Formats: sequence, C-alpha cells, structure tokens
Amino acid sequence: MASTISPAAAAALASIATPTTLVGQHQLYTRIRLATPADVPHIHKLFYQMAVFQNDTHLFTATESSIASTLFNSPPFQSFTVFILEVSSNPFKNIHSPAFLPIERTVPVDHVAADPEAETFKSSVANEDGDDNVTVAGFVLFVPSYTTFAGKPGFHVEDLLVRECYRRKGFGKMLLSAVAEQAVKMGFKRVEWSVLEWNVNAIKFYEEMGAKVLTEWRVCRLTGDALEAYGDANY
Amino acid sequence: MASTISPAAAAALASIATPTTLVGQHQLYTRIRLATPADVPHIHKLFYQMAVFQNDTHLFTATESSIASTLFNSPPFQSFTVFILEVSSNPFKNIHSPAFLPIERTVPVDHVAADPEAETFKSSVANEDGDDNVTVAGFVLFVPSYTTFAGKPGFHVEDLLVRECYRRKGFGKMLLSAVAEQAVKMGFKRVEWSVLEWNVNAIKFYEEMGAKVLTEWRVCRLTGDALEAYGDANY
Repeated sequence: MASTISPAAAAALASIATPTTLVGQHQLYTRIRLATPADVPHIHKLFYQMAVFQNDTHLFTATESSIASTLFNSPPFQSFTVFILEVSSNPFKNIHSPAFLPIERTVPVDHVAADPEAETFKSSVANEDGDDNVTVAGFVLFVPSYTTFAGKPGFHVEDLLVRECYRRKGFGKMLLSAVAEQAVKMGFKRVEWSVLEWNVNAIKFYEEMGAKVLTEWRVCRLTGDALEAYGDANY
Repeated sequence: MASTISPAAAAALASIATPTTLVGQHQLYTRIRLATPADVPHIHKLFYQMAVFQNDTHLFTATESSIASTLFNSPPFQSFTVFILEVSSNPFKNIHSPAFLPIERTVPVDHVAADPEAETFKSSVANEDGDDNVTVAGFVLFVPSYTTFAGKPGFHVEDLLVRECYRRKGFGKMLLSAVAEQAVKMGFKRVEWSVLEWNVNAIKFYEEMGAKVLTEWRVCRLTGDALEAYGDANY
C-alpha cells in the first residue's frame, strides 16, 4: 500500500484529478465509534502501549478483566467513555450504534506505512458485522467533569493514543475533536486534559486547537499506601 | 456560643477534665453526608461563595435549575457526587442514607465564631427529620476518574469549600479524607485534585495528607467560542 509519489508530484496530479479521488494518493477510511466490551482485548493492548510510550510499564497492572468490569457500568457519556478509532482501506459497513452516530472521514494519505500489528488489532466489532478489513488504530478515554461556576458538566479527557504507525496524520486531533463535538452537542461547557509541560509540540498543537494551557494549576495525587491509609477511618 | 478562653488556659483545664469532655471547651458535632436535591439552594450558594473566593463572580452563571438538572442523574459515586458538611451544637438525629453511611465526628473547639448566615444555611435535609439546629458548613464535589495503568477508577475532586466562619478547624481535611476513605472502600487506586501553584499553605497541607504535587503536568482547557466551534462538525 506504500506510495513513493512525492507531495509536489501529488499536488500536480491532483490538479488534473477528479474532485473526489486524488490520482497517486491513497484514501484511508477512518471511523470513530463508541467502544464495546468486544473491544476489551484491544483496549488492554492500547493501555499497555500507552504505558510503554510513557516509560511506565513497571506501573502497569491493568488486566482485561479489570477493564471489562470497570469501563462499561454506565451508559455512554455518563461516566467513563471510550471512543475507538478504526481505519480501513475500504469504506465501512454500517454498525448499529444508537447512542453515538459514528464519525467517518476519508483521509487522503501519500504514504501508508505497513502495520506490523494489523492482525493483532483487527477490529472485533467490525468483524462481527462481516467487515474483516478494519484495524483499531487508537482510542480516547474521557469522563464527565463538573464546572461549579456554570453549574454544568464538561468532559475530562483522561488518555488518548494513536498507534505508532498511524501518527502524524491528524488522527489525534480527530479523536479530541470528536470529544469536543460531543461536549457541544450535550450542552457541556468545558473540555479539559493534561499535558507534560516539556512537551512543547503537544502544547503548540493543543493551542492551535483553541485550548488554553493553565500555567498556575498543579495536580495533587494521592495513591498507594498514602491513599490506603485512609481506608481504616482512623485518619 | 463564642468562648473567650485562651488555648493555654484550655490546655490547663483539659488536664483536669474527664477523658470525654474538656471543661471550658465546646463540642461541635459534625457530619458528612451525601447531598440530596433538597440541598440544591445551599449548593448554589456555596458554588457562588467559591466564585467569590476565587474572584470569579463575573464567570458565575450557575442556577439552582442548572444544578438540580445536572447533579443527580446517576447513582452516588458513579458520576458527580457531592458530600455536604453539616455542623450542630447538638448530637445529630439519624437520617436514612443507604448509599453512604454518614461520617460523624465530635470536634472540641476553643472558640465557635458566630455564624452570620446560620439561618440561610439551615440544613433542609436535617430539618425534614426534625433536626432544626443543623447548619450546612461546606461541601466537596467529586467524580470518578480512570487510571489506564491500573485499569481501575479513581476519584477526581473538582471543588471543596468550607464556609469562612468554619475554617481552620480541620474540616477541609475531613471532607477530603471522606473522599479518600470512600475511594479505598470501592477499591479505587487514586484521588486527584488541582491546586494553584502559589498557594503554598494548601500545598503544604496536601503533602502532609500524603499527596504528591505533580510539577510537570499542565491543564489544557477548551471553553467558550473555541469549544463551540467544534459543534458544527466541520472542524
């Protein structure tokens, strides 16, 4: 699937192409949909890849069982919610998803890198509907937050990952934008997430998306034995 | 109710007092319980006092109606959850609260400042049970978060306020500890909240409670027109 055509040549060809197909480019079909319990094995692998990316695999204790028993206990958008990003070289077949109409985009790409884990990440949900050429490429996990000033909810984005071979194609922005779009639909007034202060590329990217980086706030975290100490009610 | 006895004199008197009652001191009865829709007028006033405290009243648009329609749509601890702190000069009568056993503490205080808003903050919930001497003194609002590394939930504390005349009595710590205790009970692995980096007293206090302040993370926030722009799905 790899194309060796240069961007300049693609642009030249595009000028004589039909409006919908760029000669010499590939079309990558993308879909953002709600996760289901059938996605748990992939979610578990994506969570692990996130730990690898952050050099924190020594902290990784999530299991398919812990994920399955915690992520799907409330209706979508009321508590933890996961959007799955899927890609395919063919148009998607429809899936039944009354709580969230999947967002489909066709993305022209000059170059599609081979996916070394294509088989591992073959989408179970799409496969159930006879769509066996769909690959899970990323996720975003978010949860409602609350703005006391507005007396209204917002969303807090906990984590977002696009698998390595699908990066630098705008998919991270697509996932974050899908959360923002859902927030607006629901009348929510805020979407928040955290970024490492030395990650200047990410900060620039988020600012271009319209976000403000709050410089004065720091996160306090109570975990491990320090947290468990509160369990005996004798603090 | 105000006492003019000095701390030193109180300590001297305490040494000759019975183990359960300190002569010359007052007992303040405190209770932390789940908020109910009957608390909405007080919650609205507490949210406003929080905006006053942060010099942000120009941003305050919350109404009793917006609070009532957003805070009580899920069972406690599944989404937004509010604990109310009540104080009384008498022991509390029991209230029916199957989802959360109220936490009661008796706090010896040298000095109980007059509460200029005692009438405004008379607890409706206690009053329904014939307890007409109970005052709402503060709240904490929290919501589940998710730790992908652990594949388990935690709590994110959105806001905490103790009314001015009840500060410096350990009530803030009681509210935060109640959230931590509930997290441990539910098998949750993390409690997080935010603090302003120049608020060194708060940071010291949180560190003494066992929390770590994460210095590298920054909060990104998408609000207002920048958020609404994502509503048209043409981003």
